Amino acid sequence: MNIYELLEKVRSQKPVVHHLTNWVTIYDCAQIVKSLGASPVMAHAKEEVAQMAQIASALVLNIGTLTPDFVEAMKLAAKSANKKGIPVVLDVCGAGATELRDKKALELLNEARIDIIKGNSSEIARVAGENVMTKGVDAGNVEKDLIIVAKNLAKKYNCTVVITGKEDIVTDPNKVYIVKNGHQMMTHVVGTGCMAASVIGAFSAVEKDLALASAAALSCFGIAAECAAAKSKGPMEFKQNIFDCIYLLDKDTISKMQKTA
Amino acid sequence: MNIYELLEKVRSQKPVVHHLTNWVTIYDCAQIVKSLGASPVMAHAKEEVAQMAQIASALVLNIGTLTPDFVEAMKLAAKSANKKGIPVVLDVCGAGATELRDKKALELLNEARIDIIKGNSSEIARVAGENVMTKGVDAGNVEKDLIIVAKNLAKKYNCTVVITGKEDIVTDPNKVYIVKNGHQMMTHVVGTGCMAASVIGAFSAVEKDLALASAAALSCFGIAAECAAAKSKGPMEFKQNIFDCIYLLDKDTISKMQKTA
Amino acid sequence: MNIYELLEKVRSQKPVVHHLTNWVTIYDCAQIVKSLGASPVMAHAKEEVAQMAQIASALVLNIGTLTPDFVEAMKLAAKSANKKGIPVVLDVCGAGATELRDKKALELLNEARIDIIKGNSSEIARVAGENVMTKGVDAGNVEKDLIIVAKNLAKKYNCTVVITGKEDIVTDPNKVYIVKNGHQMMTHVVGTGCMAASVIGAFSAVEKDLALASAAALSCFGIAAECAAAKSKGPMEFKQNIFDCIYLLDKDTISKMQKTA
Repeated sequence: MNIYELLEKVRSQKPVVHHLTNWVTIYDCAQIVKSLGASPVMAHAKEEVAQMAQIASALVLNIGTLTPDFVEAMKLAAKSANKKGIPVVLDVCGAGATELRDKKALELLNEARIDIIKGNSSEIARVAGENVMTKGVDAGNVEKDLIIVAKNLAKKYNCTVVITGKEDIVTDPNKVYIVKNGHQMMTHVVGTGCMAASVIGAFSAVEKDLALASAAALSCFGIAAECAAAKSKGPMEFKQNIFDCIYLLDKDTISKMQKTA
Repeated sequence: MNIYELLEKVRSQKPVVHHLTNWVTIYDCAQIVKSLGASPVMAHAKEEVAQMAQIASALVLNIGTLTPDFVEAMKLAAKSANKKGIPVVLDVCGAGATELRDKKALELLNEARIDIIKGNSSEIARVAGENVMTKGVDAGNVEKDLIIVAKNLAKKYNCTVVITGKEDIVTDPNKVYIVKNGHQMMTHVVGTGCMAASVIGAFSAVEKDLALASAAALSCFGIAAECAAAKSKGPMEFKQNIFDCIYLLDKDTISKMQKTA
Repeated sequence: MNIYELLEKVRSQKPVVHHLTNWVTIYDCAQIVKSLGASPVMAHAKEEVAQMAQIASALVLNIGTLTPDFVEAMKLAAKSANKKGIPVVLDVCGAGATELRDKKALELLNEARIDIIKGNSSEIARVAGENVMTKGVDAGNVEKDLIIVAKNLAKKYNCTVVITGKEDIVTDPNKVYIVKNGHQMMTHVVGTGCMAASVIGAFSAVEKDLALASAAALSCFGIAAECAAAKSKGPMEFKQNIFDCIYLLDKDTISKMQKTA
């Protein structure tokens, strides 16, 4: 997997990544895309999302602070993205926490084509129909083998499924990647999961093999996190450093630090 | 007051703190809770707030960027929290600035049980029926003795009242705490007031004496601010350092720096 | 142009700057105003915007994450600001990207008095009726002479027009300022454009010559950016340093670094 080559594609093509995301980490999602050298746009009005998706190269949806109305705008954006043929990433943030989240995540999956479903272990397990309880937006316990859960979900929707965690799992119906980059400090920061989805969006805009794009994105983000952790005393300094580490990421660092399988 | 013991309770119990807050400082509210070791969740859809409050251990409301609809969701969340018996914190952000804020703050106080009312001097004075004019969301002048204002309000609603300022006042119908921790640099940063409410939320999730919990929370937050100020050249560096200082706060630092009465 | 004198006026008068802005950079807009020593307030409910504008000394509108409803609230706020006689700044963020943005920008210009129109080159060109395509919220290419575009627009609405870019253009129907302060790192950060509008808002609250106020604001912001760039390794460190550099900005630094014509 040539991660650096994909990162350079993002940097040179500067894809527009359209987001309908949550209100907590919306800045971070935009800035991580910008730090990659790509061009974020955040727009959620029903009256413009379809048109905005037409000028984008990827669409990122995140249900972290959803309302039913907001999800309707997501559907319009996703259908427009489907028509244009650009990848749609869905971060099922908080799935399992309430019935609304479960219901709306399924509506999105059933009413539009979602190319990449992303969540932590308990969120993905819930979307896959496993019986888990999400603790708010932080991961709960999942007993079943996560790779099997992810792969079955990928087959069901013929898409790519990403489970973030200590080791990230990326699978499509045919193959599995395990990404071992990243740092435990990420669990002390709000927004690393949302940012990961945005990085996946940017990479999926430049690489048609979406499982490959997702694994490369997560490795790249994880390497930046490791670099950031090495020079940070606490979670906020760490978070701020992630942005600059991904901006400065070079070929040597990636080839030395990459841990994908 | 054993502040460190309460902080350790937050760190070990990792309570879910559900927020319906403003769109300006929503990230900061989430991250300060995360930095404490607890688990923030932000959710405001009418369709899910009652259920989300059921998996939480405290609820924090903030009217900083209120709309009438948003306040209806707050009421549903608060009633659900009341049913579960978890503490509800209301930050009356900007009360006194417009009729809408005054009216909605009172509706929340009258239609649900609010356990902790928190604001700066002019906001609390306004909610207490004093004749003050709030300058936007920054504190205006209040002439009357603030402790009396706070105590009367605490008696009226049989709750805890917190007035933040150079010295924070915390009172319930029976007792008063004065917290002298904090730093003047806080007045140059947007969001320290909102974050204080979130810290109070986290502490109130682990300690039933809510005045004690609030005073401990403010002392803890104020100590972190003092530590942050000691190594910061400007307000933004100061703000970012608060998150890491509260994350790193240890027993020794607290016992040396605690200024509560 | 005595920029320092105006900055000191902001610091001593501490004007309230009311914003109806986007959800991406709302914190940054508030904090940059706070770092200037002024008092930001963010309020968007139709039920209170008119009243909030009455306690403000400037109003800043930004259509970055607009909805039709949100724009209705902007109109109410703008009309109230017009009545009070305080300056209204409109950041036409993303104009040209969708029909909704173009339409709503024009509605705001036609239904209320906008005192300062601000955007990047492609946004302003679009509002001026030139045929350009905006790439999301980042600037696209504009062929025509920008100063002429800006001046014609200023004459049409009898207002001040600001085009931000490598060199900022500020014009009213009678004069033109070129501001050469700033740093290319600003293009790698989400929110510098929005913050610039907020700084313009704060300066326009203390100086009646709005073109002068805008040019001084942009120079001040640009100098802070140059100071920040000098001590930053990446875009996020740079962005955080802008806030503190503007907070610490003194007479000497301004007089040494000011590049306005």
